[in-house]
Amino acid sequence: MRVLGVDPGLTRCGVGVVEGVAGRPLTMVGVGVVRTPSDAELSHRLLAVERGLEQWLDEHQPEFVAVERVFSQHNVSTVMGTAQASAVAMLCAARRGIPVALHTPSEVKAAVTGTGRADKAQVGAMVTRLLRLSAPPKPADAADALALAICHIWRAPAQNRLQQAVAEHTARRTPQATKGRTA
Amino acid sequence: MRVLGVDPGLTRCGVGVVEGVAGRPLTMVGVGVVRTPSDAELSHRLLAVERGLEQWLDEHQPEFVAVERVFSQHNVSTVMGTAQASAVAMLCAARRGIPVALHTPSEVKAAVTGTGRADKAQVGAMVTRLLRLSAPPKPADAADALALAICHIWRAPAQNRLQQAVAEHTARRTPQATKGRTA
Repeated sequence: MRVLGVDPGLTRCGVGVVEGVAGRPLTMVGVGVVRTPSDAELSHRLLAVERGLEQWLDEHQPEFVAVERVFSQHNVSTVMGTAQASAVAMLCAARRGIPVALHTPSEVKAAVTGTGRADKAQVGAMVTRLLRLSAPPKPADAADALALAICHIWRAPAQNRLQQAVAEHTARRTPQATKGRTA
Repeated sequence: MRVLGVDPGLTRCGVGVVEGVAGRPLTMVGVGVVRTPSDAELSHRLLAVERGLEQWLDEHQPEFVAVERVFSQHNVSTVMGTAQASAVAMLCAARRGIPVALHTPSEVKAAVTGTGRADKAQVGAMVTRLLRLSAPPKPADAADALALAICHIWRAPAQNRLQQAVAEHTARRTPQATKGRTA
């Protein structure tokens, strides 16, 4: 199973591709960050995130996309940008019929470190160990994206297969309940 | 000048197209709502919003897209979906090189009613009068989308022309600062 993890953000959107199955050693396929200039207009930043993610999807053809679930409680100043970047990630995946899973930061931390209250360094250390890397991926957003992908691979395989079938079906026939009138 | 106003939302995304210039009577070209089922997965709802908005863009070819600016302070339970639907609207416009303007709810209310604290009924009544309609557009999201478009048309024309030139330029060459490594 090949999973693209996305740690959404406008300034730095972490991306990491992991391949493997639960209970077996995992392999890192790629890791990186899609950056957009903070002085650009919001719509252009979203477009740059889309183009960056499309490149990752084209190159690595993941079977699942795992995105961090954004909460409105966290860090009010950046949460809107994070929510909007996550929307772009979900949209890019849905358009290709790739199932999208959302995982909370605590679920991801608990999956890779055993505790939902782990800090960045601990997550980085475990990602490095689990993927047998020589050094922790930098920046932290890239490590978080890999952790998301690992967390997803370790979910119940049956649930993943079901979600995959539903996503493929939906991409073919998405509800388009557009109602309107034209003058 | 033809403007598509978008009142973003996942359950109901209001859309309204208005044509005209500041200081002259305005014309409604179209109005409607893009709806997505609340029991669908978030990624599929975003995809349905995208497909709905693409239809409106294809059909009406607006020169500007005006989207309501979302604040994280408002209505915490729905704000994430609103932010994500607005991201889809901005993305669809940016992809076509159409400039995007964000207006706050108070700016829109002040533009069409003279006060930033107007209620839904007052906005609906003024939209009906300004566009010479026989009845207020329903639901309120559709009326709000028309109010957004009107608000945008009444902005400084020079500013709009400048933004249009920048958007066209950016759509041709969006910064793609993707940095990554592949294992």
